[in-house]
Amino acid sequence: MAKDFIVTPWEVKGEVDYDKLVEQFGTSIISDDLINKIKKHTGKLHYMLRRKIFFSHRDLDILMKEYEQGKKFALYTGRGPSGHTHMGHLIPWIFTKWLQDAFDIPLYFQMTDDEKFLCKPKLTQEETKKFSYENALDLIALGFNPKKTFIIIDTEYSKTLYNIAIQVAKKVTASNAKAVFGFTNETNIGMYFWPAVQAAPCFLPSILSGEKIRTLIPAAIDQDPYWRIARDVAPKLGYPKTAAIHCTFLPALTGPKGKMSTSEGMQSTIFTTDDEKTVRNKIMKYAFSGGKDTLKEHRKHGGNPDIDISYRWLRFLEDNDKKLKKIYDDYKSGKLLSGELKQILVDKLNNFLKKHREKKEKAKKQLDKFILKD
Amino acid sequence: MAKDFIVTPWEVKGEVDYDKLVEQFGTSIISDDLINKIKKHTGKLHYMLRRKIFFSHRDLDILMKEYEQGKKFALYTGRGPSGHTHMGHLIPWIFTKWLQDAFDIPLYFQMTDDEKFLCKPKLTQEETKKFSYENALDLIALGFNPKKTFIIIDTEYSKTLYNIAIQVAKKVTASNAKAVFGFTNETNIGMYFWPAVQAAPCFLPSILSGEKIRTLIPAAIDQDPYWRIARDVAPKLGYPKTAAIHCTFLPALTGPKGKMSTSEGMQSTIFTTDDEKTVRNKIMKYAFSGGKDTLKEHRKHGGNPDIDISYRWLRFLEDNDKKLKKIYDDYKSGKLLSGELKQILVDKLNNFLKKHREKKEKAKKQLDKFILKD
Repeated sequence: MAKDFIVTPWEVKGEVDYDKLVEQFGTSIISDDLINKIKKHTGKLHYMLRRKIFFSHRDLDILMKEYEQGKKFALYTGRGPSGHTHMGHLIPWIFTKWLQDAFDIPLYFQMTDDEKFLCKPKLTQEETKKFSYENALDLIALGFNPKKTFIIIDTEYSKTLYNIAIQVAKKVTASNAKAVFGFTNETNIGMYFWPAVQAAPCFLPSILSGEKIRTLIPAAIDQDPYWRIARDVAPKLGYPKTAAIHCTFLPALTGPKGKMSTSEGMQSTIFTTDDEKTVRNKIMKYAFSGGKDTLKEHRKHGGNPDIDISYRWLRFLEDNDKKLKKIYDDYKSGKLLSGELKQILVDKLNNFLKKHREKKEKAKKQLDKFILKD
Repeated sequence: MAKDFIVTPWEVKGEVDYDKLVEQFGTSIISDDLINKIKKHTGKLHYMLRRKIFFSHRDLDILMKEYEQGKKFALYTGRGPSGHTHMGHLIPWIFTKWLQDAFDIPLYFQMTDDEKFLCKPKLTQEETKKFSYENALDLIALGFNPKKTFIIIDTEYSKTLYNIAIQVAKKVTASNAKAVFGFTNETNIGMYFWPAVQAAPCFLPSILSGEKIRTLIPAAIDQDPYWRIARDVAPKLGYPKTAAIHCTFLPALTGPKGKMSTSEGMQSTIFTTDDEKTVRNKIMKYAFSGGKDTLKEHRKHGGNPDIDISYRWLRFLEDNDKKLKKIYDDYKSGKLLSGELKQILVDKLNNFLKKHREKKEKAKKQLDKFILKD
């Protein structure tokens, strides 16, 4: 059986078997029962839940039970600001925005500029801070509620974070950190401490409010190990364990294996800063195709949408189920050609990015409302 | 030869052979040449330099050379606020105050409430913070210049400290920290990071001023390992290496071995909070005596001031050389009895502590002027 995939917070390799991954990580598949419970409260379901792009969780069932008993919860997610934002980052943020609106709850968003500075030998503190602010504009552009969204730039909120982090750190040995994060004796001491800094926002809603508020982390499943330490420590500090909801990976343009990542090369990703021509060129040139070798064969036997990256990206981006199904069927039947399918994606992306750029421009004036200060 | 002593930042055991310790630590004895150079600038010498209570250094010769070339330097020392201040803490502070006045330079004083919270299983953050403020009053009571003295309470200055500490931490591996501090895999991750937090004030005068300002750390010699990491990292970050001046240990009342420490039991120490009666009782009851067993023998053969704790304490406290020599000679000749010698120390301490208590009371109003805020 396919055991030839690797998923850690730092690398995703091979074609991921998500069922096996859930078993490996010890998370739970989101059951139909749980989905229905969510639907009961939100009225309708986000397409990422309908399509099981968000497919796995930890303690989401407990969180929903508490919610039905009248207990509030808060969202927490984040970003490592080591470069420009790409579409792979936006996927969980788009879903997070839906959760915020559907449940009318606060979001704490951590920009881990300290971690990126510590783990990337060549990045300076100035660079990671600059990317924090730039990435924040991408977040704000998605329409988050300025009254309920709190962006934490680690190095600028470090008084509060450090005071919480030392509480966490006191309960975590170097052995724990090595086991969860694969640290070695050659890892720098900033990285050793850093899991405590990342755990801090899990408890921030409780600390700031004085009530016990559970946090829910929407993120791609590779990020799950990061919060295992936070979950272990939570009861020792008297806070609720952080819950999580996990999504699959937006694949790299170049093929269905692994996830889209800047470190895989510029051609595997679409950045929010890419202009229309760049988007078109990248999709046309690099997007892995499920089409047949010749037009004749494609018309006769049809393409394979399941391995076609343009289709797979549309699954993450097109909220209209009917439209998506028609694309799937037409491609499979050979009615839709690979170039045409690519064009659908190009248009979808360029429409989205055009509006996104405008919203980012407006977001510059709103930035101050979102950044949490000590 | 006596290798049966141990000196680390956490324990001092046995009768310390300071020459051997200097060799072991790789520090340098303060030469007569260097002492004369200091005297040239300060006019007179503090008794702790005359008596070689401050006896060892790192790069003090370089610092004095730079000073003669017109370069300024700053003082940095600190305290782990895990309890009340005792006389052993005051010794280097008294000398530090003299250095501040003699050279008219700033002092950065770090209250390491985070470290004490992290390394003492039973201490809470509230307790270490409370002791920080209480210990700060003891410092201020010694008469430090409010315009040039900056007290850093780690958890309250953690924004600035964290931003410097991650620069340090990026250059220090877990291996380095294990080698210098003896950390194990069971040590918590807060302690692993903490050497970077302690290094931060070494560079603070340079960072705050934008100039390259060397720091000089006056401290008991057991604290030396703490700054080895800061010295290693300094050139990598473009800062001058921290210099140090080290003192011997004020011995425990109960005997000349080890150093005075709260963890050795209340009877081994005099706290600044001890009242007159307590001071008298402790000295009379516990202060190890160099006297003979009987009055007759003492009068005939004399006592041994070199092992007598009351005398050894007076060496640290009595600035008048003649007075001290007379005590020494009289005790050695048998003219001065053990009870009388103890009474001299009791009076010396109670006089000092009476004024100290009054100054501490006044210091409460000055506290705000001294505490550095982000």
